[in-house]
Amino acid sequence: MASSQSALLWLVLGISGAALLFAVFLSRWVLARDRGDAAMQRISNAIQEGAEAFLARQYKTIGLLSIVVAVLIYIGYAFFRPAETGADALPASTLALYTTLSFLLGAICSGFAGFMGMWVSIRTNIRTASAARSSLNAALQTALRGGAVSGLFTVAMSLIGVAGLFWILDAFAPAGITAEDWTRRIPFLIVGFGFGASFVALFAQLGGGIYTKAADVGADLVGKVEAGIPEDDPRNPAVIADLVGDNVGDCAGRGADLFESTAAENIGAMILGVLLFPFFGVRGVLFPLVVGAVGLIASIIGVMVVRTSGDEDPMSALNRGFYATSALVGIAFFFLCRWLLASPAAPDAWLNFFYCALIGLATAFAFVYITQYYTEYRYRPVLSIAEASQTGPATNIIAGLAVGMESTVLPVITVAIAIVGSYYLGQNSGLTDTAGNPVGGLFGTAVATMGMLGTAGYILAMDVFGPITDNAGGIVEMSEQPDSIREKTDRLDAVGNTTKALTKGYAIGSAALAAFLLFSAYLDEVRLLTGTELTVNISKPQVFVAGLLGAMLVFWFSSLAMTAVRKAAQSVITEVRRQFREMPGIMKGTQQPDYGRCVDIVTVGALKAMVFPGALVVCFPIIVGLVFKQFGIGAEAVAAFLMIATIAGILMAGFLNNGGGAWDNAKKYIETGSYGGKKSDAHKAAVVGDTVGDPFKDTAGPSLHVLVKLLSTITLVLAPLFI
Amino acid sequence: MASSQSALLWLVLGISGAALLFAVFLSRWVLARDRGDAAMQRISNAIQEGAEAFLARQYKTIGLLSIVVAVLIYIGYAFFRPAETGADALPASTLALYTTLSFLLGAICSGFAGFMGMWVSIRTNIRTASAARSSLNAALQTALRGGAVSGLFTVAMSLIGVAGLFWILDAFAPAGITAEDWTRRIPFLIVGFGFGASFVALFAQLGGGIYTKAADVGADLVGKVEAGIPEDDPRNPAVIADLVGDNVGDCAGRGADLFESTAAENIGAMILGVLLFPFFGVRGVLFPLVVGAVGLIASIIGVMVVRTSGDEDPMSALNRGFYATSALVGIAFFFLCRWLLASPAAPDAWLNFFYCALIGLATAFAFVYITQYYTEYRYRPVLSIAEASQTGPATNIIAGLAVGMESTVLPVITVAIAIVGSYYLGQNSGLTDTAGNPVGGLFGTAVATMGMLGTAGYILAMDVFGPITDNAGGIVEMSEQPDSIREKTDRLDAVGNTTKALTKGYAIGSAALAAFLLFSAYLDEVRLLTGTELTVNISKPQVFVAGLLGAMLVFWFSSLAMTAVRKAAQSVITEVRRQFREMPGIMKGTQQPDYGRCVDIVTVGALKAMVFPGALVVCFPIIVGLVFKQFGIGAEAVAAFLMIATIAGILMAGFLNNGGGAWDNAKKYIETGSYGGKKSDAHKAAVVGDTVGDPFKDTAGPSLHVLVKLLSTITLVLAPLFI
Repeated sequence: MASSQSALLWLVLGISGAALLFAVFLSRWVLARDRGDAAMQRISNAIQEGAEAFLARQYKTIGLLSIVVAVLIYIGYAFFRPAETGADALPASTLALYTTLSFLLGAICSGFAGFMGMWVSIRTNIRTASAARSSLNAALQTALRGGAVSGLFTVAMSLIGVAGLFWILDAFAPAGITAEDWTRRIPFLIVGFGFGASFVALFAQLGGGIYTKAADVGADLVGKVEAGIPEDDPRNPAVIADLVGDNVGDCAGRGADLFESTAAENIGAMILGVLLFPFFGVRGVLFPLVVGAVGLIASIIGVMVVRTSGDEDPMSALNRGFYATSALVGIAFFFLCRWLLASPAAPDAWLNFFYCALIGLATAFAFVYITQYYTEYRYRPVLSIAEASQTGPATNIIAGLAVGMESTVLPVITVAIAIVGSYYLGQNSGLTDTAGNPVGGLFGTAVATMGMLGTAGYILAMDVFGPITDNAGGIVEMSEQPDSIREKTDRLDAVGNTTKALTKGYAIGSAALAAFLLFSAYLDEVRLLTGTELTVNISKPQVFVAGLLGAMLVFWFSSLAMTAVRKAAQSVITEVRRQFREMPGIMKGTQQPDYGRCVDIVTVGALKAMVFPGALVVCFPIIVGLVFKQFGIGAEAVAAFLMIATIAGILMAGFLNNGGGAWDNAKKYIETGSYGGKKSDAHKAAVVGDTVGDPFKDTAGPSLHVLVKLLSTITLVLAPLFI
Repeated sequence: MASSQSALLWLVLGISGAALLFAVFLSRWVLARDRGDAAMQRISNAIQEGAEAFLARQYKTIGLLSIVVAVLIYIGYAFFRPAETGADALPASTLALYTTLSFLLGAICSGFAGFMGMWVSIRTNIRTASAARSSLNAALQTALRGGAVSGLFTVAMSLIGVAGLFWILDAFAPAGITAEDWTRRIPFLIVGFGFGASFVALFAQLGGGIYTKAADVGADLVGKVEAGIPEDDPRNPAVIADLVGDNVGDCAGRGADLFESTAAENIGAMILGVLLFPFFGVRGVLFPLVVGAVGLIASIIGVMVVRTSGDEDPMSALNRGFYATSALVGIAFFFLCRWLLASPAAPDAWLNFFYCALIGLATAFAFVYITQYYTEYRYRPVLSIAEASQTGPATNIIAGLAVGMESTVLPVITVAIAIVGSYYLGQNSGLTDTAGNPVGGLFGTAVATMGMLGTAGYILAMDVFGPITDNAGGIVEMSEQPDSIREKTDRLDAVGNTTKALTKGYAIGSAALAAFLLFSAYLDEVRLLTGTELTVNISKPQVFVAGLLGAMLVFWFSSLAMTAVRKAAQSVITEVRRQFREMPGIMKGTQQPDYGRCVDIVTVGALKAMVFPGALVVCFPIIVGLVFKQFGIGAEAVAAFLMIATIAGILMAGFLNNGGGAWDNAKKYIETGSYGGKKSDAHKAAVVGDTVGDPFKDTAGPSLHVLVKLLSTITLVLAPLFI
């Protein structure tokens, strides 16, 4: 192992390890907070129990599916992969072993990251609720630091997994291959890690997303609309299931989502770094990991500087943390580019790549602001939905759908500028191949992606802040605390809704960039496998058709996700109605509802419902690849399938996420007293929109982020079978 | 002019002229029917007046916009088009003149086809209403034959326009060019005709679509929901506007839509026919026109065989007509292929192309059946929406959106099979270029498209049948005829809803095939202009980004269309509420509402709202082309933009059309008495879904068909400017 390689890997592993230790320290700090009174604890324990029971059953299902896929990968690689030729050929069994083990490791790490996020958040919620009894700042810090445990664990685990795999494989260099050639091969051998991570992330996000919204929709429709009791009222039998859902959907799901974003981005960027080996050597390959590690430090600092006074908007405090993190990441990029991307052949290339990183950071900012514009009630879009609610639910729905569709415009323009701009900077960085053609373009887009994901740790902390404060509010309400405390958690909850929306905008933006990276990596892999450059010419009928099928998959999957929520919600509704009917003491407050039964029903419903859509996403690209292989254009068709599915996925996810967020806040705006306020007809119409938006923004939308990346990683792993 | 060319053109012009004469005969037959009593006539006159006033103002706006575009095309071609070189070079001013005149002729013919459709339908509605007083069969025949006038006019005008232009240009062959070379050039010189047709179709469909749904939503929300009066109640001030809308949206709009489908398909197929000149000569170029002309005869026979007895489902009668037309078209294809596509170089090629035609006919059938499955309440999708209505409007909406998204799956698979299958048959037809490469594939897809559009005349007759029966029902209701008559028109109206849904399925399927044809023509044009084959490689970042922008345009446009409806509807609601408030005699039936004021408000609202979305669709591809030209890949980027916009457009249109149709029929299913029937909570929820579906299925969805084809024709015309 070259000494610089070894040093860089130790740097990455060291920082990531330190970040994990810091996460443990933070979690101890959070766990040392006060656990509130007995009433609070009873509710918190019920949430904890339900969430852990769901996760245990969900992970069992995902584990079984993962083993099936691992076996299939092994068989595919060992028996159906074309044998390698050339000096550095590896036996099929070795390739199969590496890929399968990478897949399993990715799956395990992704699952663990999701589990940790939830483990901490279900313990932080009650402490945040209790802290709200002393001060807003205490509650804010408790919630954010609880979220940070999840954020740090996720990013650090991802870095440790990739760097660790790199390090282990490096030790197994086969005889007859130079150290340098082996280093250049490793990124291709660990693509299974990204696939494993995406695979688990898809099921975690989808199952959790179905769970959370089935419980939410079911609880709202019977509780708020039919029985006329407020949100989080302890008389609602589905209320615990609803609170459990926040944890398993938002914490565990998004944790797995961003875990795989960083993992996939790192592996994709490393593959593109290999292309530039003549200029940067191993430093270019490991650059993404070093950037990720330094981003972790920036995120820790960002989290620790957040504090607020009583009368300030808590969102401003969180924004300050984000600015601090971004600024630190920006500065770090300057030095890291100068250090690691220095090449005598192109002395100014590092500066261009630094600009690419700035483009990535700016893209993150743009997404955050655009998402705010479309989902906050200070601005026209949400206000137009609120206004349309006056003429009833139908116009509210039409307005919300229109806002959701419109909200894709600016993000697409942003992504377009980011991709073309960073590519242009990369192409003009002075790096050329032996024939004099510029070659730095794709690495430019990779660096922009790194810039965008550099702040991932902080963003994820903000995101998990959302369900924690949501739960804290629920605990305060159900344990019947004084209004002044509820008022504090309400303020934090409103901020949490915003941060959740922002993260989704950020996640979809980074998914767009990462996906572009990944299919560049795919093309690169195909080029290495076949020896010729792959063009993806969609003017060929078969390739066009493959693209059409890719876009169709996005519509189909969205349909399945929403239907799953509706069906599971209907079983909750039936159960809640049954309890109200058979246990009349519930509404009088003399009898405790059977919370556990609702939790069970949602658990079973969500797990059953997630299998088909998840399996569809995994099987569809494989079928497309194998069918079009018969026409002799398997690899090209799969590429078109992937790219156009990505385009459709990005747009659909933006539509669903922002539409859902806008409906939610249109309802909140009316609740502030406009258009008749609570209980008015406009409010009733807005509740309909909010309910429709639930599966949009918390089930189908976020699952599409993962779908986009899963398609990329699955094709990256299975490319050899399509050629 | 070669004698076979001359003979074929005369054949096309002769048959089309005869079809026009027959249409005149049919319209005289319809006009000779009884015009009912004075009450009916008063209402019919009001509808007629409103519709003609709208069309007059709309055509004025469209006319002005067309003149602006014509001037811009002339300037672009005369001053910014790269000068032609080579033996057959034409002066820039000549090219500019031909293209501009083609554009204007296309625009005029398209407008005229739309106008004729509406002119007849607003005169047929009252005669259908009156015929319903004697028998169901009389009413059915009156409505269908009225619709047939529109169908025949549309297809015949399209054929006459294209064949006529071909014939005129043929007379202006410049010196120094052989007759054969000139024949091969003409299809490229008349692409402006397709653009003109699409341009008018977009505004006609969009403006009409906004009008019809703004009036419908406005009338329903205040009338049915707030005031509790039935549909088409004469006390509703917006009821005339609603009936006018059926004519201007469904008749004029769809007429223009299918006019441009056939025009664009013919021109695209002729361009591909030029490629096969060495095999088929001018016969291959004129084949699409001959097929279209023979399809007209088949449609006439199909319309004339439709009759029904009192107790039969009228849909069965209409289906028989469709089967007859399809069978005749199929048989005609056999002989036409054998006659016109015979080549000594590939003696069996014609048989392969005949199979392609059968694929096209089968595709039309598949679309008709799939659409029925997703929009009729005999099947699972609509029943699932009805069931979900029991738990309120939110679950109704979620279910409807999911059904709409799911409904894209089978059509996409159908289109995929049709494109790949017909391409494969064409490639294996034995036609090869001098290097031995197969060249018949694209013409195979073209023949499949002709097969699908061969029945266009009949399909359009069925489509216009819809608004005619809808209007007839309205006239019967408003003139307070006995229930037995209303019952007959209700049965026809239900069938009309089905036929309207089917036509939309058919229109989107044919738009998919025609668009594929058109961008093959675009690539061909670019090849001729640059001398090199254009590959559309979406793995290039700029090309990918262009594709992303294309998909985004579809979301943006859909958003604008739905917002336009919502805004115009809200102004109707405000006006109706004002009339109810200020004129208390209306509800008592002692005072006549001010129908005209509502008609005016919708007219102004729809016209204002259509300009921006329409202009966006025209300008966006031009901007993309000119911007990416700076990166040196204008033509390639535009192709990707176009193709991915087409994919997104097809899916989105399918989602919107079928979702809207399914909601409509879920409501109708509940009205048959299920889940509590009319006035139940489930029914109220279903009304919300139906209202949301209105702009889906009658504004945004159908406008997207036109958008897809407009993008193709505009890029075809402007290709020289992007290179």
